[in-house]
Amino acid sequence: MSLNFVFIGAGNLATHLSQALLHAGNSILQVYSRTETSAIKLAEKLHSKYTTSPKEINPNADIYFVALKDDAFTEIMPQINFNNKLVVHCSGSLSISILKNYSANFGVFYPLQTFSKQREVNFAEIPVFIEANLKENEIVLMEVGRQVSNSVTLMNSEKRKFLHIAAVFACNFVNHFYTISEKILKEKKIPFDVLKPLILETAKKVLEMEPANAQTGPAVRFDEDIISAHLEELKGNRNFAELYNSISKSIFEFHQKPE
Amino acid sequence: MSLNFVFIGAGNLATHLSQALLHAGNSILQVYSRTETSAIKLAEKLHSKYTTSPKEINPNADIYFVALKDDAFTEIMPQINFNNKLVVHCSGSLSISILKNYSANFGVFYPLQTFSKQREVNFAEIPVFIEANLKENEIVLMEVGRQVSNSVTLMNSEKRKFLHIAAVFACNFVNHFYTISEKILKEKKIPFDVLKPLILETAKKVLEMEPANAQTGPAVRFDEDIISAHLEELKGNRNFAELYNSISKSIFEFHQKPE
Repeated sequence: MSLNFVFIGAGNLATHLSQALLHAGNSILQVYSRTETSAIKLAEKLHSKYTTSPKEINPNADIYFVALKDDAFTEIMPQINFNNKLVVHCSGSLSISILKNYSANFGVFYPLQTFSKQREVNFAEIPVFIEANLKENEIVLMEVGRQVSNSVTLMNSEKRKFLHIAAVFACNFVNHFYTISEKILKEKKIPFDVLKPLILETAKKVLEMEPANAQTGPAVRFDEDIISAHLEELKGNRNFAELYNSISKSIFEFHQKPE
Repeated sequence: MSLNFVFIGAGNLATHLSQALLHAGNSILQVYSRTETSAIKLAEKLHSKYTTSPKEINPNADIYFVALKDDAFTEIMPQINFNNKLVVHCSGSLSISILKNYSANFGVFYPLQTFSKQREVNFAEIPVFIEANLKENEIVLMEVGRQVSNSVTLMNSEKRKFLHIAAVFACNFVNHFYTISEKILKEKKIPFDVLKPLILETAKKVLEMEPANAQTGPAVRFDEDIISAHLEELKGNRNFAELYNSISKSIFEFHQKPE
C-alpha cells in the first residue's frame, strides 16, 4: 500500500513521522506550517511541496496528519478543505471527537516517543496507538502504523489520555530533573558526564524490574539527616528545594503505605 | 596489589562493591551486618566470615568499608576497634570528617550508581569519587578504585554533597516518576511495557544532548489546555496532581527565563 499524505504542522513529531512514512514507500504531497522556515526545511527532507496558507492545502491527499499546537489547531483547522478525506491527529491528549467537524473520516495516530528534530530515532521500536471513527478507517490506519512500527495498538481517547499523562511523568518530568541535576552540577563546576552512567542504569533497571522495587536513595531509606542536609544546601534555590521536599514526601508515602 | 577488606554493612552498595573488589583479586575477610540473614547472604557470596556484633569485627583488615544507614552509623561505629587502619565510608552526602574519631587513617570511596541486590552492574563503568585524610591514603584508595572502575576521581566532601543531590534528582526522583507512571497506567489496565521505549530514549537523549535542549511535552510548549485537562484527570490523586502542577511550573520558569 502506497499512499499520499499531507502534513499539517512541521514540528518534532511531524518531522520524524513524515520521514518514516516516506521511507516506508509513501509520498508526502505537501507540508503546511505557519512558520515558513519550518515548512521549507521539512519539505526539503520529504521532496514535497509546502505552504504557509491553510487555504492552499492540497485537497487530494489520502490522509492528512495534523500535528499542531492547541492554539494553532482551533485557528487553522476551520480554514482547510479536507474534502472528506481521512484526517488524523497525532496527539496523546486530544479526543478523536475534536476532528468530527472537519471531515466524515477521521482518527488518531499517536506515536509514543519524545522527538527532537536534531536526533535520529528508530521508528520501528516506537509504539503507535490508533483510533478511528469507522472500521474502514481503522483498518487503513492500522496498516499505515504497521508500515513504520512493530507495535501498533488500538486505544480509545479516554485510555490514551492517561497514557499521555503517564508519559509526561516518565519522560517530560524526568528530563526536567536531568536539567535540574545538570544545573546543580554546573554551579559546582562538575561535568554532567559523571551522571550519565547513573541516568542510563536508572532507565535500564525499569526495563527489567518493577519501578517501585528499583527505588533507591535517601527518601526510600527514610534517611532524614541526609534529606535535611540536602534541603539546607538547596535553600538558595526555592524552586529546587520545594521540589526536593514534595517528591521526597511522595516517595515516603508511596513506600510506607502498602498500595 | 591485593588487600584484605572488611565490609561494615551488607546493603545494596556493599553487596556490589565487595564483589567487584573480590573479583579484582582482593580478599574480603568479614562482613558485618545487624541483620544476620543479610550478613550470611553476602558472606556466602564473598567466601568470607561474618558477624552481627561490632565488637567481633576483625581488627586486621587493610581497609574497612563502611556502608551503613545514618542511624546505624552513630550507634555502631564507636563500638568497633579499627586499630588505626584505613576506614572509608561510601556515602555521597556524609563529610569525610565524620570518620576522624574512629581512626588516624580515613577516607571516602563513593561509587555513583543505583544498586539493587538482584540486579547485576558492570562496575568498570561506574564513576568512583575518592577523598582521604592523608596523601598516602589517597594513593591507596585511588589504586583500589582503579582496580574496579575505569573512572576514578578525587573530589572533596563539599563538592561530593552536590554531586549526590544532583544524583537524587537524576536517579531517585526519576525512578519515583517511573513508579507514578506505572501506577497511572495500571489503573487503566495499560501495560507498563508500552512506556519502555520512551523511558530508554529519554535517558539516551541526554547522553548526547543538553537536557534543556531535549525537553519536550505540554509544559515546555506552554500548552495550557492539555495541562488543565491532565490536572483535571489527576484530581482523584491529590499528591500526583500537586506534583504535576509544581513540576510543570518549574519547567515554565526554567524555559521562559534565560538562566
